[in-house]
Amino acid sequence: MPACGGIDLGGTKIQAVIVDDDSNVLGSARRATPTAGGPQDVAAEMETALRDAAMAAELEPASLAGVGVGSPGTIDEAGNVSSARNLPGWTGTFALAATLSRALGCRVLVGNDVQVATDAEFKLGAGRLYDSLLGVFWGTGVGGGLILDGKPWTGRGGAGEIGHVVVEIDGAPCTCGRRGCMEAYAGRAAMEARVRHLHEQKGRKTDLFELMQERGRTRLTSGIWARALEHGDKLAVQMLERAVRALGAGIASAVNVLDVEGVIIGGGLGIRLGHPYAKLISDAMLPHLFADSRPPHVHVAALGDLGGAIGATLALRGLQTRERNRHESD
Amino acid sequence: MPACGGIDLGGTKIQAVIVDDDSNVLGSARRATPTAGGPQDVAAEMETALRDAAMAAELEPASLAGVGVGSPGTIDEAGNVSSARNLPGWTGTFALAATLSRALGCRVLVGNDVQVATDAEFKLGAGRLYDSLLGVFWGTGVGGGLILDGKPWTGRGGAGEIGHVVVEIDGAPCTCGRRGCMEAYAGRAAMEARVRHLHEQKGRKTDLFELMQERGRTRLTSGIWARALEHGDKLAVQMLERAVRALGAGIASAVNVLDVEGVIIGGGLGIRLGHPYAKLISDAMLPHLFADSRPPHVHVAALGDLGGAIGATLALRGLQTRERNRHESD
Repeated sequence: MPACGGIDLGGTKIQAVIVDDDSNVLGSARRATPTAGGPQDVAAEMETALRDAAMAAELEPASLAGVGVGSPGTIDEAGNVSSARNLPGWTGTFALAATLSRALGCRVLVGNDVQVATDAEFKLGAGRLYDSLLGVFWGTGVGGGLILDGKPWTGRGGAGEIGHVVVEIDGAPCTCGRRGCMEAYAGRAAMEARVRHLHEQKGRKTDLFELMQERGRTRLTSGIWARALEHGDKLAVQMLERAVRALGAGIASAVNVLDVEGVIIGGGLGIRLGHPYAKLISDAMLPHLFADSRPPHVHVAALGDLGGAIGATLALRGLQTRERNRHESD
Repeated sequence: MPACGGIDLGGTKIQAVIVDDDSNVLGSARRATPTAGGPQDVAAEMETALRDAAMAAELEPASLAGVGVGSPGTIDEAGNVSSARNLPGWTGTFALAATLSRALGCRVLVGNDVQVATDAEFKLGAGRLYDSLLGVFWGTGVGGGLILDGKPWTGRGGAGEIGHVVVEIDGAPCTCGRRGCMEAYAGRAAMEARVRHLHEQKGRKTDLFELMQERGRTRLTSGIWARALEHGDKLAVQMLERAVRALGAGIASAVNVLDVEGVIIGGGLGIRLGHPYAKLISDAMLPHLFADSRPPHVHVAALGDLGGAIGATLALRGLQTRERNRHESD
């Protein structure tokens, strides 16, 4: 089988990989997600990221078996993506699969970003040992994916919205327009909005925005948060404590309902802050767990930043295998 | 097939039924759950309830194909029940199946109370139209049961604890010892403790306790709450508004994670307050639902107070059918 490509479309970055049949990474590349413009601009950056990854693997995009994409938003079977929050100007519907397919000269399959990343951790990563797990992707927003009884659970297509579990009725405003969601405390976008307000309006001190300027960024990336924590920046520490408290309550609520074996913490912040924070989140879950004598195992996503992109390739390979089997049985 | 029996062991009442092969009810009886003593006293009342139901059906308990029991607490395969909260003196382990089997002279199978009730609504009641549903049993506590893809989902044996979804970090004290659980606002035990405190310590006016005395009760039953609401008792109305707010947030959180098709509201309060409250709960979910353009359908449990007991008979019949099939294939 020829190699195939995968793209993870995140709120902050676009990660592309080229993998062989056994999911070995032959090449990878990363681009910042545009903060202005619209879906067309985002698709152009996705194309560039994939071309860069293909070049690193010394392959032509058109020679690939196809490209899998993990995307936020609502995705239909044709790969049209609607209402992708945290992406610029993407409130309507955009033909992402068709646009990328035309640009790259190969087949493109679009799946849900957190679901493909959860599936990758289940098949190849930190969830290999479990039959049931909850993936929590802690980044710009907080997304979730479920594996129950060895299979993805997607409900009516919208399951896994763990970021919008309510941890405080009438609590903090969320970027989704509601109040008191877990993401309103733990999502990087919400944390940035709050810390900016506290710094600019309330005069609270923090080095976060200086670090951002030093690094030539326009947003507080996971790396900037991690750096500020290393410095002992008080406001950053406080914001992260608040985030962990919310994550503990929200994830424990989901575990109380589902009683899964494992919880995988991924996403930009989850990967960057790593094991020490997975442990803090696990500790923050404990006071809320009904079955607290046997809490679920909490792990950091083993595939790291590449999990989403590798997961997208698995979804594509899975579809192609099903099509081949159907063809052979005809 | 001979008739079989079912017992639903609730925090306030014990409901027994005798049903034929098609789940037609041949006889039923109800007893108050003891508020003092221990598991042995509870088992004695369960025996009496089942004997009364059998008498109404003109059958001897020993002639039944068996008796299914829906119980709170942790249940092992032999029908031993541990840590049944909301039941008197039941902190340890009690051999409920063996005790009842000896007393009634027939086989006894013990299952989880809310899971068998959810299964009954799925097979015979308000959940018949759905492949995925969440049962919410709003009574002394708030329990939950799940059907996903047409099958019960029990996780590692402890799934469905929707009553302990956190709706307010560091919120109201719950009867489980934790804080901010949905049950801490909506469970009848928690509501009674709070209204007693407000009445006796804070001088808040309410007719709830007079109604209780008039009816010769020692607890605020669902009927007493319903009566006080009819009278427009201000404190009762306020407590129920608080309960509905918590139910709305907690159930919406579970729906955000699972995206089920239907929600069934059962339990003593759920059944007694009926459709108007199911509508209020549905309305209270809406501001917290991520996919608010297609909220799940919310129904009152169609099997009413008998759902748990009928569900327990279904679990027994299911086991007997599996045993028969296994025997025939030997």
